[in-house]
Amino acid sequence: MTVRHRVVIVGGGFGGLTAAREFRRLPVGVTLIDKRNVHLFQPLLYQVATGGLSPGDIVSPLRWVLRKQRNTRVWLADVVSVDADQHELRLADGTSIAYDTLIVATGAGNHYFGHDDWEPHAPSLKTLEDAIEIRRRVLEAFERAEREEDPASRQAWLTFVVVGGGPTGVELAGALSELARDTLRHDFRSIDPREARIVLIEAQERVLPAFPAPLSTKCLKSLTRLGVTARITTFVTAIDTRGVDVAQDARSERIPARTVLWAAGVRGSSVGASLASATGAPLDKAGRVIVLPDLSVPNHPEIFVIGDLAHVSRDGALLPGVAPVAMQQGRYVADVVARRLRGRSIHPFRYRDRGQLATIGRAAAVADLGRLRFSGYPAWLLWLFVHLMFLVEFQNRVLVFIQWAWHYFTRNRGARIITEPHAWQTWRLPRDT
Amino acid sequence: MTVRHRVVIVGGGFGGLTAAREFRRLPVGVTLIDKRNVHLFQPLLYQVATGGLSPGDIVSPLRWVLRKQRNTRVWLADVVSVDADQHELRLADGTSIAYDTLIVATGAGNHYFGHDDWEPHAPSLKTLEDAIEIRRRVLEAFERAEREEDPASRQAWLTFVVVGGGPTGVELAGALSELARDTLRHDFRSIDPREARIVLIEAQERVLPAFPAPLSTKCLKSLTRLGVTARITTFVTAIDTRGVDVAQDARSERIPARTVLWAAGVRGSSVGASLASATGAPLDKAGRVIVLPDLSVPNHPEIFVIGDLAHVSRDGALLPGVAPVAMQQGRYVADVVARRLRGRSIHPFRYRDRGQLATIGRAAAVADLGRLRFSGYPAWLLWLFVHLMFLVEFQNRVLVFIQWAWHYFTRNRGARIITEPHAWQTWRLPRDT
Repeated sequence: MTVRHRVVIVGGGFGGLTAAREFRRLPVGVTLIDKRNVHLFQPLLYQVATGGLSPGDIVSPLRWVLRKQRNTRVWLADVVSVDADQHELRLADGTSIAYDTLIVATGAGNHYFGHDDWEPHAPSLKTLEDAIEIRRRVLEAFERAEREEDPASRQAWLTFVVVGGGPTGVELAGALSELARDTLRHDFRSIDPREARIVLIEAQERVLPAFPAPLSTKCLKSLTRLGVTARITTFVTAIDTRGVDVAQDARSERIPARTVLWAAGVRGSSVGASLASATGAPLDKAGRVIVLPDLSVPNHPEIFVIGDLAHVSRDGALLPGVAPVAMQQGRYVADVVARRLRGRSIHPFRYRDRGQLATIGRAAAVADLGRLRFSGYPAWLLWLFVHLMFLVEFQNRVLVFIQWAWHYFTRNRGARIITEPHAWQTWRLPRDT
Repeated sequence: MTVRHRVVIVGGGFGGLTAAREFRRLPVGVTLIDKRNVHLFQPLLYQVATGGLSPGDIVSPLRWVLRKQRNTRVWLADVVSVDADQHELRLADGTSIAYDTLIVATGAGNHYFGHDDWEPHAPSLKTLEDAIEIRRRVLEAFERAEREEDPASRQAWLTFVVVGGGPTGVELAGALSELARDTLRHDFRSIDPREARIVLIEAQERVLPAFPAPLSTKCLKSLTRLGVTARITTFVTAIDTRGVDVAQDARSERIPARTVLWAAGVRGSSVGASLASATGAPLDKAGRVIVLPDLSVPNHPEIFVIGDLAHVSRDGALLPGVAPVAMQQGRYVADVVARRLRGRSIHPFRYRDRGQLATIGRAAAVADLGRLRFSGYPAWLLWLFVHLMFLVEFQNRVLVFIQWAWHYFTRNRGARIITEPHAWQTWRLPRDT
């Protein structure tokens, strides 16, 4: 028997998991490495952050998804660096793993544009833990307001600032507004949660700047109807525990707010930087790896970068950091490997754009399907359908559907848990020793 | 208008929440104080700890449950002490709250019988955070075993010791076994999760010592069929990171195990001690408040203790720390307050015992309904039905039912998330300042 071609995939997100599944029937041995044991359905993370869904509803255990794929193993590990000459990855526990083909799909993290000190005051929404922390802050803010007697302090607890008017910011602002106006409506005695102020801050001239202008206008209308104050051409100049300083034109202003959420910038994950230093691959300003047309790294045809970490242009514009791009790239790369093994020719990657969707709230969304653009109820139904269909497991689909139906009719959100920081965190023992 | 009679209830568990709901139509003002914003359905906590359910499935936000009860407010606060002379509670934030009637329902915590240093090595299952931590340890143990090459170390990662053979210990051991034998069966490549060893340690002469002896025998059989090793008349003498020392008769033995769970002792919560020092109320050895036949504290007819924190005897035996006892006590105390307000006479509390149930695993349970005792599939169906019916919210019932049906047919468990300790824990800012 010959030794199988060893494919190592780093990252079990949309790109990495799609690639892993594509290798199912190929004569290769696949190792999927992730820091986490689950695939996270990131597009619904904002619903965990606002108490609509439970973390368990939007994850699928990687091992479970790949359990029947006998040529594939899942490795729970943290990649520290790439040794491109040795064709090896170094892991945090000191071990190494060798590859013949390496697919890096570690995605992107947050980018505070040089203001990393803002992060504790303005969490962003990338991981399950982020979502749980945001949920805690939001729910606790209402609790604090209920018991606060000073009107100004109370208003600061009831003010929620979302920085960034892209799809994530819009979804968060809309969901926060619904939480305050519908879900929590009858829950308090001293405050009226409907007095909560939700401010969405966008530096560009319109919300959803990546969408066609008419849809931005529709989105703005929906946001206003939901009671969200959208501030365009507005820049954040400072964030602290008590609020946000913003500047618009030449005027600057202080917004007292106890809860600030960051949905503005993303930056390629650290594995990208490590890959760049190992291979000389170029990075863009946001730390993404600029790849060749076949998604490989210059001079290293055996190393591919896909998903949010890859910088790929189409007609001069950067492909967006969304699931369909990552999934198509995962499928493409698996095909490239298969073709190489069979000695066939390779075509460059081409993204087939099926459009983009953003939801604002209950029965409000915008859809840009190229020639077809629409908003409101039909767009929202399409959004529901697409998101349910892409949820990996059938069980999750049913659970999420029931919870959405429940929210729709009762306006309740069941997963409103304030999780406490726990003594386990400090007791954590060195289990390796 | 006269000032309403002020009822303060501390604790939103089964006892406190039932009492709060009973006051719905009475001319009193109710404040329900809890450290947490949710009611926790504790009997299903072990399913969160073993990845079967999400935390959101077994909680109901207290505010939501009580939102329509206009005479009731919910206070998220931590009670520090009771001032029985002033009729006031002191809260952790420095404020106080006055009561005319006080109902203490703060439940019980863990009891390590003087070995509090065992707690980090052997977490017990009382809070949502405990369940999430246990889930993390259990799942991580399999991950570590998958990558461990030394056979002895691997076996230690695959050994799970549960201390305590009461209902919680039995449920945990059974669920761990199903996790290893069914759910994870195809998930790994280097290990066979079915080789996991689950050891249940009980000091008394049989498991489920509070049940009739024939049911203990049935339970033992079911456990054995599930591959659980039950060790009776066995005492734990030491617990550390690497395992457990046990003693049986005169022999002592070391069980190397990386995961040890504690389901042995409970102790009344700290509010009980504070109440005792404020009122001179007697405590039993486990820190429970020994109350009068009307559940009030000696010399303080306006202070009641209910639920797991109350020491109440019936025919010389202590009432068990289960939900039905707490709920009946909550209902009783609300009735006592109503009768007093109307000047009517009061009868002592009497527990109406409808029986007890314990589940061991898939299609295996034991039921003791007084004269009627049975086990196996019928007992398991009864267990399912009772637990679904008592879940507070309709939505939770549907969600839990679907997940149970899903587990039953696929043997999957969807909520298998290893939650990481998070930077937020260290960044936690003093939001009060």
